[in-house]
Amino acid sequence: MAQAPAITVALDADDTLWESEVHFHGVEERFRSLIHRYVGDTIDGAETDSRLNAVERANLALFGFGVKAFTLSMIETAIQLTDGAISTDDIAAIIGWGKEMMAHPVDLLDGVVDTIEALAPRYRLALITKGDLLHQEGKIASSGLADHFEIIEIVSEKDSPTYQRILDRHGLDPSAFVMVGNSLPSDVLPVLAIGARAVHIPHEVTWALERHDGEVDVPTLQSIRDLPDLLATW
Amino acid sequence: MAQAPAITVALDADDTLWESEVHFHGVEERFRSLIHRYVGDTIDGAETDSRLNAVERANLALFGFGVKAFTLSMIETAIQLTDGAISTDDIAAIIGWGKEMMAHPVDLLDGVVDTIEALAPRYRLALITKGDLLHQEGKIASSGLADHFEIIEIVSEKDSPTYQRILDRHGLDPSAFVMVGNSLPSDVLPVLAIGARAVHIPHEVTWALERHDGEVDVPTLQSIRDLPDLLATW
Repeated sequence: MAQAPAITVALDADDTLWESEVHFHGVEERFRSLIHRYVGDTIDGAETDSRLNAVERANLALFGFGVKAFTLSMIETAIQLTDGAISTDDIAAIIGWGKEMMAHPVDLLDGVVDTIEALAPRYRLALITKGDLLHQEGKIASSGLADHFEIIEIVSEKDSPTYQRILDRHGLDPSAFVMVGNSLPSDVLPVLAIGARAVHIPHEVTWALERHDGEVDVPTLQSIRDLPDLLATW
Repeated sequence: MAQAPAITVALDADDTLWESEVHFHGVEERFRSLIHRYVGDTIDGAETDSRLNAVERANLALFGFGVKAFTLSMIETAIQLTDGAISTDDIAAIIGWGKEMMAHPVDLLDGVVDTIEALAPRYRLALITKGDLLHQEGKIASSGLADHFEIIEIVSEKDSPTYQRILDRHGLDPSAFVMVGNSLPSDVLPVLAIGARAVHIPHEVTWALERHDGEVDVPTLQSIRDLPDLLATW
C-alpha cells in the first residue's frame, strides 16, 4: 500500500499565532487623539482612519507591509491632516510609537502552544508570514515556537505566485498543503487559487486592507484549538 | 575518479552587483544642506553625518537595514539637530527622498552582466543580500539577473550564524562555498569564520557601518570582471 504524502500545515503568524493588529489599533487610537488636538471637530476619527488607510495603501507598492511602513505613513498623514501644523515633538512621538511596536513582546493567542505541539508530530509544519523581515524574525524567535516549524518563510506579499514559489522550492504538492490564517485575502483566497486547501480562523480585529467582502466557501474555526480535529477528518 | 562537489559562488548585491551606497550618499548630501539651512555653521557637515550615523546605529536593532530605517533615522536626527525647528515641509521632503530611493531603477555595476553570464554555466550561483525585503526583491527582479541564481536569500543580518543557516538549508559544505562582496564585515569576515572562502571587491563608496579597520588576508579584486579568472585557479 502506497503511503500518502506527508501533509504540510502552513500557519500565518500575525493575528493567527500572536496578536498584531491590536497593537496597530492601539497606536491608531493615539494617532486619532493626536490629530484631534490639532483639528478639533473638523476631522473626525473615522476620517482620520480613512485618510491614514489611504496613505498606507498608496505607499504599499514602495514601502510594503510592517511597522516601519506604518510609521512613515502616519507621519505623512499627520502632516497632511494638520496642514503642516503638527509639532516636531509629536512627529518624534510617532517615531517612538513605531519603536515601541517593534520592541513589543510577542503575545501568543490562546491555544496556540497546545495546538502547535499537538500538530507537530503529525504534520510537516510551515510558518508563512509577511512584514518587516527583522521584526518577523524577532517575533518568531521570541515566540518559542520556531523549532516546531520545518519551513519558515517571511515574504513581502502573500499572493498566489508567492505561495506557488514556496511550494515549488520545497517540492510540495498543492493537494497535500493547507494554509491556516486569519486573512481571507492573504491566507485563504490565493491558496485556493493554486489548488491547495485553506482554513480561516478569523481574528476579532482585522486591518482594513486585509478585509474581504463576500462569502468564501472554506472551513472556518472560532479557535485554533479546533484545528487538530478538523485536520484529522481530512 | 570521484567528482568534486559543485562550487557555490554567492554574491552580495548592493554595491557588488548594483549601485546602492551612492544613492544613500546623494541623499545624505541633501540632508546636510537641509540641516545647514537651520543651524548655519554651528554644526558642520561632518558633525551632521556623524550624528545621523549614531542614530542609525542606535536604531539598527529595532529597525534593521534599508531605506525605510534610513528615512526614519533621518527624520529623528533632523528633529534633534534643529532642536525641533525643522519644518513639516522639510520632514515631508525627507519622506519623499525615501520614496525616491525605493523607486530608483537598478544601476548594474560595470562588468556584472558579463561576469554572471560567464559564471552561470560553471558554478551554482547564489545571491545573498540584506535590507528591506520588498526593496531587495524589486531590485533583484528588475536587475534581469534573477534567473541565473539558483539560491536567493534576503536576510536581516549577515553574520556567521546567518551564513551557516544558509549553508545548512541548502546542504552546502563550507569548503565548496565562496562569498563575493564589497563589505569586509558583512561579506568576508563572517564567511571566513565558518570555514568558507571569500573574495573582496571594494566599492569606492562604503557606508560607515560597513567599514573595517585592519588588514584581512583575502583575495581582493579591482573589478568583478576578474572573478572568473580567480575562481578558475581554485
